[in-house]
Amino acid sequence: MNSFGTLFRISIFGESHGKAIGVAVDGCPPGIALEPEDFLPDLRRRKSGASGTTKRHEPDLPEVLSGLYGGFTTGSPMTIMTWNQDKISSDYDEFFRIPRPGHADFTSTVKYSGFSDRRGSGHFSGRITWGLVVAGVVAKRIAATAGFSAKLISAGGSSDIEGAVRKAVQENDSIGGIIECVVSNVPAGLGEPFFNSVESVISHLVFSVPAVRGIEFGSGFSAASMRGSEHNDPFTDDRGSTSTNNAGGINGGITNGNDIVFRVAIKPASSIGVAQTTFNFNSKKMDTLEVKGRHDTCIALRIPVVIEAAAAIAVADLMQADRGIYNAERKTRS
Amino acid sequence: MNSFGTLFRISIFGESHGKAIGVAVDGCPPGIALEPEDFLPDLRRRKSGASGTTKRHEPDLPEVLSGLYGGFTTGSPMTIMTWNQDKISSDYDEFFRIPRPGHADFTSTVKYSGFSDRRGSGHFSGRITWGLVVAGVVAKRIAATAGFSAKLISAGGSSDIEGAVRKAVQENDSIGGIIECVVSNVPAGLGEPFFNSVESVISHLVFSVPAVRGIEFGSGFSAASMRGSEHNDPFTDDRGSTSTNNAGGINGGITNGNDIVFRVAIKPASSIGVAQTTFNFNSKKMDTLEVKGRHDTCIALRIPVVIEAAAAIAVADLMQADRGIYNAERKTRS
Amino acid sequence: MNSFGTLFRISIFGESHGKAIGVAVDGCPPGIALEPEDFLPDLRRRKSGASGTTKRHEPDLPEVLSGLYGGFTTGSPMTIMTWNQDKISSDYDEFFRIPRPGHADFTSTVKYSGFSDRRGSGHFSGRITWGLVVAGVVAKRIAATAGFSAKLISAGGSSDIEGAVRKAVQENDSIGGIIECVVSNVPAGLGEPFFNSVESVISHLVFSVPAVRGIEFGSGFSAASMRGSEHNDPFTDDRGSTSTNNAGGINGGITNGNDIVFRVAIKPASSIGVAQTTFNFNSKKMDTLEVKGRHDTCIALRIPVVIEAAAAIAVADLMQADRGIYNAERKTRS
Amino acid sequence: MNSFGTLFRISIFGESHGKAIGVAVDGCPPGIALEPEDFLPDLRRRKSGASGTTKRHEPDLPEVLSGLYGGFTTGSPMTIMTWNQDKISSDYDEFFRIPRPGHADFTSTVKYSGFSDRRGSGHFSGRITWGLVVAGVVAKRIAATAGFSAKLISAGGSSDIEGAVRKAVQENDSIGGIIECVVSNVPAGLGEPFFNSVESVISHLVFSVPAVRGIEFGSGFSAASMRGSEHNDPFTDDRGSTSTNNAGGINGGITNGNDIVFRVAIKPASSIGVAQTTFNFNSKKMDTLEVKGRHDTCIALRIPVVIEAAAAIAVADLMQADRGIYNAERKTRS
Repeated sequence: MNSFGTLFRISIFGESHGKAIGVAVDGCPPGIALEPEDFLPDLRRRKSGASGTTKRHEPDLPEVLSGLYGGFTTGSPMTIMTWNQDKISSDYDEFFRIPRPGHADFTSTVKYSGFSDRRGSGHFSGRITWGLVVAGVVAKRIAATAGFSAKLISAGGSSDIEGAVRKAVQENDSIGGIIECVVSNVPAGLGEPFFNSVESVISHLVFSVPAVRGIEFGSGFSAASMRGSEHNDPFTDDRGSTSTNNAGGINGGITNGNDIVFRVAIKPASSIGVAQTTFNFNSKKMDTLEVKGRHDTCIALRIPVVIEAAAAIAVADLMQADRGIYNAERKTRS
Repeated sequence: MNSFGTLFRISIFGESHGKAIGVAVDGCPPGIALEPEDFLPDLRRRKSGASGTTKRHEPDLPEVLSGLYGGFTTGSPMTIMTWNQDKISSDYDEFFRIPRPGHADFTSTVKYSGFSDRRGSGHFSGRITWGLVVAGVVAKRIAATAGFSAKLISAGGSSDIEGAVRKAVQENDSIGGIIECVVSNVPAGLGEPFFNSVESVISHLVFSVPAVRGIEFGSGFSAASMRGSEHNDPFTDDRGSTSTNNAGGINGGITNGNDIVFRVAIKPASSIGVAQTTFNFNSKKMDTLEVKGRHDTCIALRIPVVIEAAAAIAVADLMQADRGIYNAERKTRS
Repeated sequence: MNSFGTLFRISIFGESHGKAIGVAVDGCPPGIALEPEDFLPDLRRRKSGASGTTKRHEPDLPEVLSGLYGGFTTGSPMTIMTWNQDKISSDYDEFFRIPRPGHADFTSTVKYSGFSDRRGSGHFSGRITWGLVVAGVVAKRIAATAGFSAKLISAGGSSDIEGAVRKAVQENDSIGGIIECVVSNVPAGLGEPFFNSVESVISHLVFSVPAVRGIEFGSGFSAASMRGSEHNDPFTDDRGSTSTNNAGGINGGITNGNDIVFRVAIKPASSIGVAQTTFNFNSKKMDTLEVKGRHDTCIALRIPVVIEAAAAIAVADLMQADRGIYNAERKTRS
Repeated sequence: MNSFGTLFRISIFGESHGKAIGVAVDGCPPGIALEPEDFLPDLRRRKSGASGTTKRHEPDLPEVLSGLYGGFTTGSPMTIMTWNQDKISSDYDEFFRIPRPGHADFTSTVKYSGFSDRRGSGHFSGRITWGLVVAGVVAKRIAATAGFSAKLISAGGSSDIEGAVRKAVQENDSIGGIIECVVSNVPAGLGEPFFNSVESVISHLVFSVPAVRGIEFGSGFSAASMRGSEHNDPFTDDRGSTSTNNAGGINGGITNGNDIVFRVAIKPASSIGVAQTTFNFNSKKMDTLEVKGRHDTCIALRIPVVIEAAAAIAVADLMQADRGIYNAERKTRS
């Protein structure tokens, strides 16, 4: 249940304060030029350190255990990992007496009967998305003709993102944000009409990213207020170009060759310094929780590259499936 | 690629004006009392005929080909279908010279190299969701302890849904809407932290429903404008009850036992009577398209039961997977 | 659990005396010329009627419910079925008081808690392989460059198959047999080194056919008695041709371009007229069972076309997966 | 394509002379007591060093990167690996000019376009089965009520296994063997009638083990020479016990509660010291190959524990799937 993909298949593993975190990537073709350094630019975008993100310093250098030889992918399964360092586990002890509101402390205890590694939020840490970013770099090479670009377009309800973060830092609180992702140069014809619609596959991966609350394609929720006559995207040529893109590049679950456009809502991080009144599972009474230690004021700042990775993984998988079933057999009916 | 589920697995088939449409359901346990008539209440909710929906009259009586015997499910794969009737195919001929803006006419031609059954939009017709509703009825029996309820909460941007529909009918245009779905009495612990988060599985299915543009859980897109101190849901007892439900019943991808709440944005149907300027793929020039025939002013009116079905299918599949891996082995660490 | 395949995906449904039996085929590309009549030659090979097979007369005409239009596959899911006729259910009533030795009467009751459709052995009937043969016809069109040929090479331990059958008919007993299948003109490079080795995928499908007791590739069980120096197949050209074929066309789980060769052991059918001493689950005592009604003396006579179908389904799925991951990216390292 | 399982899901990675080899295990429930040392007994059984196996000395100590905490499984994905040591890569260079007959040298080059890591046979090395054995240890804990036992019952055609190995060592040749595996105390009801029959799932995994040429269940290939009256296993009590076990514990693809019994044919290893005449892909002429370096005279000696692991992984996966779909819903029809 902790893997994704049809032919291009990934699974991520690790706990925040365990030995290592990483990702297994299967279905990568051989002959793709790739060096461990190639992962660094995207990993740096995910890195903490900037204002509004945790002070934790993560070198996060990837170690490629398999599937890479002589500067090229071999076609065999790749496992890529990084060792955990800079671990301070004592911060997290009390969260199972007083589970953090909005966090997975409670659900992980129920799910795993109390056996989960609770240190640093364990397998539920945002840190585990390291593996998604790494797999995303591989996926971008597979879907090399397409372009992937995600960025934060608002934070705390404001397009002045820096200002919103500064204010929230002062208040010891956290804020959410909205990320927009654009995938350009996608061939028309990817996706399936029902269970593997492009939206299905992308949303499946995007909701694997912690803190995501919603996703919308093209005109998204505003489509609900529109009329067909304004929402429909008129075609302007026989390659399927449209003058507007309310469909977000997808009709009937299948790419139409225009940019895939989607937006993702990120909630404010649940770990905040502000005091919260919540239930104490030991005393069986309401209690006050103040989360100490390092945390992200605006986790959304670090997520665009993760969303980009999710989009790339989805597109790589859709491309391979489409080629497998349709391409060599694609004939045109006159 | 046209199936979904891990243990409870469904696939839908059929073309709008072909012989039949239907659904294959695998992984249904034996001994569930079920008669063909039990599908009718949900199928009626999906039925057309009301103001704002197409005039096409669909009896849609389900014929159970397998997996049901003596009033009970047998445990073997179920195939349930209905014959197509009341087919007027001539309406659809021109849409491949002038593909309807916003519709799958263009993408289905690319995807299937022109071999798709174009009559009545073929496999891309909303009619194919009949199978989802039927599978949803089975899923609701499997997830029998949970309650599923979806309803249209706005149309064309207004909560006066009837008024909005009436106006759009007069204008020969179409409108979208927003559907809210609540799943109650869900056990805590369903879902997986990453690739099979509850949101991942539900959104995957929901985006299999034609005309869906977005989905949000709990506070959804408004979470992006909130602070952690207002967004976090305080616990109020040791069963995980919370005083607010911004998380939509899900923390870290796993149910917390509160209601799962999500909203879905439905776009206005692309087939409209209003004249549209778009590309003519034959003449290679811009042209005017007026879509004749029967169509839905507000397709969102018919979709709540489909969304409900998607939620039920997701929850049934998650329940079975959770029981398979965790239940018999669930021990508590003292 | 009752489906198979990665991209080319099939599932079979139906009970022997239920309404219908059939198969769902997903992942078939569009544009393949196919008519319902095209299924008949292979279905006739599976048909009963000859000496040594049951007298039951099955017309078995396929009805294509979806995915076929204007003489070509559309690319959408295909469901193909046939109605059950000529049903005499009373024969089977006693088998749940005295489960037939060697039959699924006992295990199906345990598995499905007594809710299975027991008439005519229900979903456990060899009749359900009709769907495999139908899917095999589609698969052969997808893997059109390859040739598939399976035949019975011995029955009851003898290569005089007709004689062996005649003798067993006289004795009111049943006999087994060995089927050999050859797949020619397979491209080198199909399959994966471990979990989707060519042998893994073929054996998975072959053991889905009732009455199969074993499978061996190339030299098979005799390899266990051989030395490496006699077992190794020397290459004779740079396309990978070998002078012997002990490997059955597969090295390291991957096709080497020589014929895939495998043999399948078929057990004697469990329903026999000879009296058998076995346990009576009602009286809780040993009892005597004489199975009345129609049954196959040598079920192996009807199975070659089913094994051929299994091989074709496996090869079609492997071809699509290989093309999806490798082909378009296949580069040669100088 | 390089993973296996429905709920209990494994994938193996690594190249023989790369950095590391290992396995990812998903779907393991939390709370199973497990220490790295627990893997050693089975790993030792796979180890080389005895007469008839390669001299290569492998410590093979497992390093658990994730999913284990405080002596118990956590329920999160486990990645378990070992570092490669004692690597002498020069032995393998010539095998791509003169591919070893019977080996994957040729097919891996075709499959991966020459980009595979050829050192030590790379991902095609028998060494990669280390991960299967490790996953098998986890699987045995999940299927803890069952017993798994595999042993070599003949080598080179003889039951005097030591003698056969001694003779082959003298001749610088290799020999094959037959392994028998017995799974005891399996509950009745596991497996599915068609695509996930117990035989399908076990054979799929067993053919993932390099050097396997055939598999047979119960009476196996000898069933083809038997009559139904001798092959049928009479029941002796109402728990499904049978007086013989020609069915190998499986009827209709489903366990009947008797021992699962199967035998596996292992071919002689392809790397032999004896001179072989085969094609030289450089000179484009026939040539003579003498394989130097360390190799196994009777690789079958090391494979029983791998087959046992394959059986355990299959049974664990079948148990979880069965419990997920059937158990909680299992009702008995009176």
